[in-house]
Amino acid sequence: MKPTDMAKEGTEMTEETEHMIEKNGAKETEHVVSAGDTKEMRAVILSGFGGLNKLRVTKKAMPEPQEGEVKIRVKACGLNFLDLMVRQGNIDNPPKTPLVPGFECSGIVEAMGGNTKGFEIGDRVMAFVNYNAWAEVVCTPLDYVYNMPDDMTFPEAAAFSMNFVAAYMMLFEVANLREGMSVLVHSAGGGVGQAVAQLCSTIPSVTVFGTASSFKHESIKDSVTYLFDRNADYVQEVKKISPEGVDIVLDCLSGENTGKGLGLLRPLGTYILYGSSNMVTGETKSFFSLAKSWWQVEKVNPIKLYEENKVIAGFSLLNLLFKQGRCGQVKTVVEKLFSLYNQKKIKPVVDSLWALEEVKEAMQRIHDRGNIGKLILDVEKSPTPLMASDSTETSEAGEEEEEHEGDSDNKERMPFIQ
Amino acid sequence: MKPTDMAKEGTEMTEETEHMIEKNGAKETEHVVSAGDTKEMRAVILSGFGGLNKLRVTKKAMPEPQEGEVKIRVKACGLNFLDLMVRQGNIDNPPKTPLVPGFECSGIVEAMGGNTKGFEIGDRVMAFVNYNAWAEVVCTPLDYVYNMPDDMTFPEAAAFSMNFVAAYMMLFEVANLREGMSVLVHSAGGGVGQAVAQLCSTIPSVTVFGTASSFKHESIKDSVTYLFDRNADYVQEVKKISPEGVDIVLDCLSGENTGKGLGLLRPLGTYILYGSSNMVTGETKSFFSLAKSWWQVEKVNPIKLYEENKVIAGFSLLNLLFKQGRCGQVKTVVEKLFSLYNQKKIKPVVDSLWALEEVKEAMQRIHDRGNIGKLILDVEKSPTPLMASDSTETSEAGEEEEEHEGDSDNKERMPFIQ
Repeated sequence: MKPTDMAKEGTEMTEETEHMIEKNGAKETEHVVSAGDTKEMRAVILSGFGGLNKLRVTKKAMPEPQEGEVKIRVKACGLNFLDLMVRQGNIDNPPKTPLVPGFECSGIVEAMGGNTKGFEIGDRVMAFVNYNAWAEVVCTPLDYVYNMPDDMTFPEAAAFSMNFVAAYMMLFEVANLREGMSVLVHSAGGGVGQAVAQLCSTIPSVTVFGTASSFKHESIKDSVTYLFDRNADYVQEVKKISPEGVDIVLDCLSGENTGKGLGLLRPLGTYILYGSSNMVTGETKSFFSLAKSWWQVEKVNPIKLYEENKVIAGFSLLNLLFKQGRCGQVKTVVEKLFSLYNQKKIKPVVDSLWALEEVKEAMQRIHDRGNIGKLILDVEKSPTPLMASDSTETSEAGEEEEEHEGDSDNKERMPFIQ
Repeated sequence: MKPTDMAKEGTEMTEETEHMIEKNGAKETEHVVSAGDTKEMRAVILSGFGGLNKLRVTKKAMPEPQEGEVKIRVKACGLNFLDLMVRQGNIDNPPKTPLVPGFECSGIVEAMGGNTKGFEIGDRVMAFVNYNAWAEVVCTPLDYVYNMPDDMTFPEAAAFSMNFVAAYMMLFEVANLREGMSVLVHSAGGGVGQAVAQLCSTIPSVTVFGTASSFKHESIKDSVTYLFDRNADYVQEVKKISPEGVDIVLDCLSGENTGKGLGLLRPLGTYILYGSSNMVTGETKSFFSLAKSWWQVEKVNPIKLYEENKVIAGFSLLNLLFKQGRCGQVKTVVEKLFSLYNQKKIKPVVDSLWALEEVKEAMQRIHDRGNIGKLILDVEKSPTPLMASDSTETSEAGEEEEEHEGDSDNKERMPFIQ
């Protein structure tokens, strides 16, 4: 099937991802699609909440910048665990579908609305977007747009924004990391985990404890002081090495881990809950039961915090940016991070690049925790030809899809390790 | 009745406070008591948990310094809300009675045990003590002893230790106070409140919201940006001025205030629970029902912290020092604070000086929230003669005492405002 053979869905032209593949893997996929009508663009669309089969590549009307907005020709987009949660509708106040997922991208400024001082056409930029990032073109308010360092590549920038900003703010603005402290981070091989490890290395004598799948240990062992298998009893492992516990626990697992994390804190230590990957990867098949465990997280008694001199914090970068209007504070953090990048003290780790059409496989890879560093959607990349065993076409029900998703041996395409 | 007419209680010579008063208010009370036997000393004793009538001045065997301890001839002791909680047994794992209360003092080094490098006989020192501070002599490990600045008086030092260390650690180590932030502090006229206000003034553009009894407003208005009456709806008052809330809430009230305090936080703001004066001053008569409300404080859902980007912390300086072994960290804080004192950026506010024999009246004054700054027990001070209306002799039951304590018109002696 050719990209031009599209089926109408509402007012938008949508199509199954796997049908978008050019037989020859040609580089000019984007041009083929966009050449006919410059007012349209390709985008990933989530047609409804559920499994991978809810994702498709779509032709959409190209957005035009409003007052205060910057229009960006997207080169690369970041893919986060949060995007899997969004796909499942597993977030508070989920938006209406269909929607274009994605919260971060990098690219080139193509146009501006009024009052967008500081930007010019042709600028290389990194940007946050409140959804809609996974497209060829995005428009976003200039408060969320940052001029990239000259040496930074587009995939690096798309790998940089959410992970490094979140890691920096958690370590330095919520928890006040200082010399000689210790930090526990889960998923140490992931995008946030690698950002945390790098930022810890900018402070003298910081000990980093990390959990990660054993097969990643060789690759990431230089960035983390002590590595434990993700299935190990990390509380016991940490206490063997540091009986008094750690100063900072960064937790994206949630559930019963809050009590564990708090229990591991040294006096004046800080536990930060910043996400919930367990919600997506838990043992049960239904994401509704997972959502239930997410909401039934154990509550904390302030008196216990008082007696034990402990701190518990929550951190959501997206809420900070899009609900709580703290762009100014985030901009200051981005500037500090770019400075560290220019000094070569930090460098985003890109796991792999994927075409928009490969978003399902990319999500599968995050779900399976196969990645080391960040997964990037490379808008200009052509998808790798499908292998014969493609099974996503036969799976339509969300629940079945969940089961399928848990099966890590079922990849359709090879990952593109950079 | 003369000081020599003492009744035996166990192995210690105890006596009702009011019986200790020299009829002529003579300055040499201490010498009269201690002249007969140099191995004894005067001390305040708490004979059992309950009302003010559980406090007496006692003769006790003088302690001698053990290995690593410093023996201090006490000049001044600090009196805190916490001491009222201890008196009522309203603390976790209360120690056995009889005991000598008091956690901080200043004085002169009189002797040392082995391994007490850094101190010499005659040194003017400030010290933390794990109980036993309200006595003529205390011994405490050298980790809790600090050489005082030359210009600091003994009452200032006794007013300094707990309040300024707690205020500093909460503002700068737990909450990370920075330029332009805002702070809400309850009991702004109290010892911690005044320390918080002064420390906030060392950082540019910090807004301080404070609650205090209206009669104190004139006295403390220069130290606090916005003052509200302690009975006002402070949530509404703060929101009128700063609809977005504040960056730091310091709460010694507890109970239903945790939710209020969290609700007032701006994104990335920190709520710190550091005590519970409501426990002592609540509306009900029985301290057991008060203790119940203390333990039934509302619990916090980490998910809510995540969504709202908020931080909740507990801070107990005593636990940090005596249970959690963080003397080194506290010593560093004391050094920073002494530096600020020497630069004349901070100065402890002493409300009034009281003889050991006046400890009941001093506690009554704290209970009634009559103080501006810190109440000090001045070990060398003679008590002021009792007035005819002394009513504490007629009140023996703890429950009745609670009722009595709530009556702020019932002072036996005039306070000694410095």
